[in-house]
Amino acid sequence: MGEFDLIARYFTRPVRHAALGVGDDCALWQPAPGMQLAISSDMLVVGRHFFADVDPAALGHKALAVNLSDLAACGARPLAFTLALALPRIDPPWLQAFADGLFALADAHGCELIGGDTTAGALTICITVFGEVPAPAGQTRALLRSGAQAGDDLYVSGTLGDARLALEALQGQLTLPAALLAQARQRLERPTPRVALGLALGGIAHAAIDLSDGLLGDLGHVLTSSGVGATVWADTATELLSTPSDAAPHAPAERSGFTLAQRRSWVLGGGDDYELLFTAPPGARASVQAAALASQTPVTCIGQIDAQPGLRLLDANGQALTQHFASFDHFAA
Amino acid sequence: MGEFDLIARYFTRPVRHAALGVGDDCALWQPAPGMQLAISSDMLVVGRHFFADVDPAALGHKALAVNLSDLAACGARPLAFTLALALPRIDPPWLQAFADGLFALADAHGCELIGGDTTAGALTICITVFGEVPAPAGQTRALLRSGAQAGDDLYVSGTLGDARLALEALQGQLTLPAALLAQARQRLERPTPRVALGLALGGIAHAAIDLSDGLLGDLGHVLTSSGVGATVWADTATELLSTPSDAAPHAPAERSGFTLAQRRSWVLGGGDDYELLFTAPPGARASVQAAALASQTPVTCIGQIDAQPGLRLLDANGQALTQHFASFDHFAA
Repeated sequence: MGEFDLIARYFTRPVRHAALGVGDDCALWQPAPGMQLAISSDMLVVGRHFFADVDPAALGHKALAVNLSDLAACGARPLAFTLALALPRIDPPWLQAFADGLFALADAHGCELIGGDTTAGALTICITVFGEVPAPAGQTRALLRSGAQAGDDLYVSGTLGDARLALEALQGQLTLPAALLAQARQRLERPTPRVALGLALGGIAHAAIDLSDGLLGDLGHVLTSSGVGATVWADTATELLSTPSDAAPHAPAERSGFTLAQRRSWVLGGGDDYELLFTAPPGARASVQAAALASQTPVTCIGQIDAQPGLRLLDANGQALTQHFASFDHFAA
Repeated sequence: MGEFDLIARYFTRPVRHAALGVGDDCALWQPAPGMQLAISSDMLVVGRHFFADVDPAALGHKALAVNLSDLAACGARPLAFTLALALPRIDPPWLQAFADGLFALADAHGCELIGGDTTAGALTICITVFGEVPAPAGQTRALLRSGAQAGDDLYVSGTLGDARLALEALQGQLTLPAALLAQARQRLERPTPRVALGLALGGIAHAAIDLSDGLLGDLGHVLTSSGVGATVWADTATELLSTPSDAAPHAPAERSGFTLAQRRSWVLGGGDDYELLFTAPPGARASVQAAALASQTPVTCIGQIDAQPGLRLLDANGQALTQHFASFDHFAA
């Protein structure tokens, strides 16, 4: 099987909304009147973003999920994506599983593959995703990083730190009970992009970002862009560690003998959470809860935006925390 | 320097046309009324598409050029692009030269960088480019692969085969005089996307494709998409080898002792030419020449489209050629 057979077999499907999909020099897209396109690209590299032996269906899911998460953070509705793929070899069962994982998530969001590229090389996935946001009279309704205002409540969706916990376990830095590892690994390998929440927060949230590099690092981007500071109730956030489930409804990490300092580092430094962090004025609390309910996504208030620049972390007793929490930098040593 | 400093220093510039550029979760783009977006992605991998020691300015140029070439083949006007970049390390002089080469070409086409991603990894570049084509009443004016009609003239722009010649010389498969190598290498490393010609051919050409994998292979895509065949005057095409210049106005390869079979293989099998192949009805010959003149791009008629399927190659005496010319497949052995 060659390059063109590969594209035809695994990555060509009839388009539903595009004017032209896979198979010409370009895809063609006719934007809807009054809408603005939201565009984001993410590249995933073997050995850096995932292990070489990762489940290919999970990888297909995650490669698109991290891009949909960027649309969610702008409050954009997913439309379409392109896929560029470097593969060390053509492995039909691997490709079928990768395509299955990718298209299952794409179909769940009505987001269609419209073009791309394949080549030989170390396993690398680059997806560019397209969404739409209303822009009446050219005024965007997108949620931006730059809109946070002093006095806003600071929220995060879902749970935090589980992906980092799984990563450290898979790297052999700590040992987890099998059930807890499986649960945390699901969060690392199959993150849920918070698209419905992002859409529901349109007109409510002042600012939003998705948590890919770690809570404090990504919050820092919002503070810098908005020219504000924040106070974070660090231990309220730390309580968000570990996905509750029927089998383990309350933070199982706590029962696994990890210290508070460890749990804080996973949640606050973390990375790969793909939850939304957003700010909204106190007057919008009922609207925020309604948006959470409508999108079936839990949200938790973990602090507030301050006029004073800088980031203040408080523990459960209201005392300042001075521990350093490194966020994720792809070029850090 | 970390990931965010890198983006800020080398890849963040004020946007001119985008509603929002680099620095948020998504870029925002407001399409013009009545226009359709043309979208294409290409990924370039070290060791596969370029040598590790390639001039970084040339690499920045080429990474965007191959994407602009896809827009040219659709007759689309370049608007914007995203850049995802995996780098083995942060090397400031290398990054500055790469950015200089990239932005010089981008600025020449009014095409702005609106977003992307950087990560650590083997040197890999993935660009997604956006252009616009008129679509009055939803009817696209894009040039497609599927529009070729029996009786059409078959044209190519510029020169062919020089990039393949340079590649074989750089791989040590043959030896070239220094002046000829420099000239051919320029075609390999700094291809000229035929954007002006693609725009000028709107409403004139029936079908178009850009030549990235080799003349015969790419022509095959047009024939399959259009459900037609073609007759190619192979030696008229072969005359297009080597960029004429003031120093060497006529095909210097001929004077370097290469055989006709070698020259045919570079031109017909080739690859990396980034010229346009297009078809147009015989009644449009004057319009094609006017488009070539207006875009300052030479075009040559090298055959015709037939109702009979299949590809017929004729030599200078009108005799059928049976030599096999392999086009480029990234997964071929």
